[in-house]
Amino acid sequence: MRELPIHIQLDPQNGKTLYEQIYEYIREEIRKGNLLQDERLPSARFLSDYLQVSRTTVDMAYGQLVAEGYLVARPKRGYFVSTTEGLYHMEMEAGWEKEKPPLAQRKPGCRYDFSPTAIDMSHFPYATWKKITRNILVDARSQMFALGEPQGDLELRRTICRYLHGSRGVNCEPEQIIVGAGNDFLLLLLEKILGRHVHVAMENPTYIRAYKIFRSFAYPISLIPMDDKGIRVDRLRESDAQIAYVMPSHQYPTGISMPIGRRMELLRWAAEGQERYLIEDDYDSEFRYKGKPLPSLQASDRLGHVIYIGTFSKAIAPAIRVSYMVLPYPLLEKYRRECSFFSSTVSRIDQTILNEFIRDGYFERYLNKMRKEYRMKHDLLLGELKAFEKDFAVSGGSAGLHILLKDLRGRSEEILAQEAESEDVKVYCMSAFQMKESDMEMTNEKKQKSPATMILGYGGMSEEEIKEGIHRLKKIWIE
Amino acid sequence: MRELPIHIQLDPQNGKTLYEQIYEYIREEIRKGNLLQDERLPSARFLSDYLQVSRTTVDMAYGQLVAEGYLVARPKRGYFVSTTEGLYHMEMEAGWEKEKPPLAQRKPGCRYDFSPTAIDMSHFPYATWKKITRNILVDARSQMFALGEPQGDLELRRTICRYLHGSRGVNCEPEQIIVGAGNDFLLLLLEKILGRHVHVAMENPTYIRAYKIFRSFAYPISLIPMDDKGIRVDRLRESDAQIAYVMPSHQYPTGISMPIGRRMELLRWAAEGQERYLIEDDYDSEFRYKGKPLPSLQASDRLGHVIYIGTFSKAIAPAIRVSYMVLPYPLLEKYRRECSFFSSTVSRIDQTILNEFIRDGYFERYLNKMRKEYRMKHDLLLGELKAFEKDFAVSGGSAGLHILLKDLRGRSEEILAQEAESEDVKVYCMSAFQMKESDMEMTNEKKQKSPATMILGYGGMSEEEIKEGIHRLKKIWIE
Repeated sequence: MRELPIHIQLDPQNGKTLYEQIYEYIREEIRKGNLLQDERLPSARFLSDYLQVSRTTVDMAYGQLVAEGYLVARPKRGYFVSTTEGLYHMEMEAGWEKEKPPLAQRKPGCRYDFSPTAIDMSHFPYATWKKITRNILVDARSQMFALGEPQGDLELRRTICRYLHGSRGVNCEPEQIIVGAGNDFLLLLLEKILGRHVHVAMENPTYIRAYKIFRSFAYPISLIPMDDKGIRVDRLRESDAQIAYVMPSHQYPTGISMPIGRRMELLRWAAEGQERYLIEDDYDSEFRYKGKPLPSLQASDRLGHVIYIGTFSKAIAPAIRVSYMVLPYPLLEKYRRECSFFSSTVSRIDQTILNEFIRDGYFERYLNKMRKEYRMKHDLLLGELKAFEKDFAVSGGSAGLHILLKDLRGRSEEILAQEAESEDVKVYCMSAFQMKESDMEMTNEKKQKSPATMILGYGGMSEEEIKEGIHRLKKIWIE
Repeated sequence: MRELPIHIQLDPQNGKTLYEQIYEYIREEIRKGNLLQDERLPSARFLSDYLQVSRTTVDMAYGQLVAEGYLVARPKRGYFVSTTEGLYHMEMEAGWEKEKPPLAQRKPGCRYDFSPTAIDMSHFPYATWKKITRNILVDARSQMFALGEPQGDLELRRTICRYLHGSRGVNCEPEQIIVGAGNDFLLLLLEKILGRHVHVAMENPTYIRAYKIFRSFAYPISLIPMDDKGIRVDRLRESDAQIAYVMPSHQYPTGISMPIGRRMELLRWAAEGQERYLIEDDYDSEFRYKGKPLPSLQASDRLGHVIYIGTFSKAIAPAIRVSYMVLPYPLLEKYRRECSFFSSTVSRIDQTILNEFIRDGYFERYLNKMRKEYRMKHDLLLGELKAFEKDFAVSGGSAGLHILLKDLRGRSEEILAQEAESEDVKVYCMSAFQMKESDMEMTNEKKQKSPATMILGYGGMSEEEIKEGIHRLKKIWIE
């Protein structure tokens, strides 16, 4: 018998239990090779006597070592060190720290940021949201903490269905709706439904995030030029695309609303081929100021070629990670057959809160309030831009949360953006949304050809910030 | 001038505004072809006089029709029907309803369901959860409703990091953690990080959902047989796999805890090849009854070959859609470079609630409580199964929420399951977790060879249900 036990320095004060101390000591001895394969350990009785600890303490330590495979118990013979042949003696490599990639440095932003994606959360009915949450939690029983249906709770899907029909003309049944934690997740799921090697067409310029996502699917991507009515269907037809990702109500970032004729051309394109689909991203349709919002493309679709995607992240709050996708029946069937094992990504509690927020009219009220707020900012911005009209063509102002300034004096977007930044004002370049085929770089040729177009979002700015921001741009851009 | 206007039957009582009624009437006339391309409409002034409505009402209707592309406004000439060439006259197809796939019929369950995935939510500290939620909402400002970081809130990642280190020996920095809405989402994300055509090896039998997910990636899958220490590394080495998906702490469904020697072999396999990784799914490590839980495989990994995945859905509640993935640095770098544009899928509110629940010790307390509860059920079940020991070998009882009954009398799993069902008791067949390569069917040969093994989960059953369920099985299986 080796003299193993005498080396264990048990310390009742060191924060670890005695059992853990014994366990760790023996484990280390095995790891270091001080205890060799098949070596017998002292009996539990001997060790407990020797260390003056209870028999249970030693039993627990040995049991743990057996469970982890360091020891084997041989009936009536005792504990032995098990095969250490496979033990892996590699030390933490020096220099490991250096391999860590540096965290992306975020540049400090400008004081006046005309971000086209920022929204105004200052009017969000926090009190209402909290009240609904409180009430739900008071009534919540265990059912609420169970995993919901993969497609989302039926009640919420019914509410979304009614909402989409009423506000966007979408024709669907609740069974066609899939609720998911954000558009990105829904697109990941859609990839699994559509399959691989699907050739997708996108408007150019387009929403960069969607472009990146399709790239991550390794889908071949065709970038289709646009005219003033939206995506050019003749060019789409020339591409070999099976899917077209479009934003007919308010194209991002051009702001174009696709007229009905073009929509019908698009639907006809979809009907011409095998399994062609249009993905309609209706991302900010709620914010239209003039007349009632355009119905969705899906509303005109009679043959089930439109996959409709929308989100509450923009109209309610970015933290509300709830988006929805309406599948036409052939894809719904495919989803049910092949993909419905993917669990729901939204908690039932969140689904229930959202359902009541919409069902009880708070959503509608909030949207009306925000339309008014945004319209006020929009009108203020357009008013402030009056002085720019000799140097820029102003457009894109009937929906959404940004307008476009097209330079008439032949300056470049870089210069305009740099000048703005020198005044602590951030504006956005149209070229950043233009892509070359199979390339993420900006289209340098494009920038030469088409006039510089600056994007000014106003959703996240206060009226004072809009005024001051435009005042500063005026000084450098037009005076 | 056509006599269009006289047909409009304005009805102030029909619930729609006058503007909408005019808009809809003209739109329908265009759709039906009653108004033809380039036809001029009556002037707004004429129509407002004629219909006895305000000029604004007609302007709004015309404006809407222009916005939607049905009309064009020609300066100083008036409104004209726009190109209807593209108009798409396809009627809702008859029989569309019939195409709807039937909703999956769920069989009514048995009264006594030994589901291996059910959990007991009756001890969940609802009151605590509600209190934390209330407190967070009271303090919540707009920041809480903003979109969080793609990887998850730093505070939560710090808390998860501490928890994983303390309870599972996981060595990581918060920057390596990605928080996501469930394991399925994290695996979808992992696919984008790992890339395509990645050959994955899985234990056989294994967790069916993970198998389906890898299949949906179109990854080649090798099913590796297991012995009593877990996955056979010799067979893994023969496969050409680059990734192995394993559950070392408590394999599902076999219940095997992989001993240290085998773990080291696995890590050595990973170190031998280019870009080999082990995905460690530590799905229910919290529920170990004997000794302290086994440390994770990641804890032994010094070279960054383990991708560690865990979830709070099992240990807290299925509705808590929060899982986490710990990436080794080379993959973290790839994620940052290529995939970090994917938005977070968990709301900041949920992240904050969870963070406080863990940070303030409620999670630990709840786990301790549940370990006691589950152990009680486990011991009760084992006690009740004493009478089965002549006919079955009982195993798999030191962790997790299910035990295995291996039939010693040569009966088939189907017969045993059917007999149970005739007594309103649901038990699960091991063969349902065994797969053939590139095939989802059960291995028929396997069923012939290996003895029938029934899986009895007890997590979701009350003590009375366990007693009665076993009582019923006793009557049919052993008497």
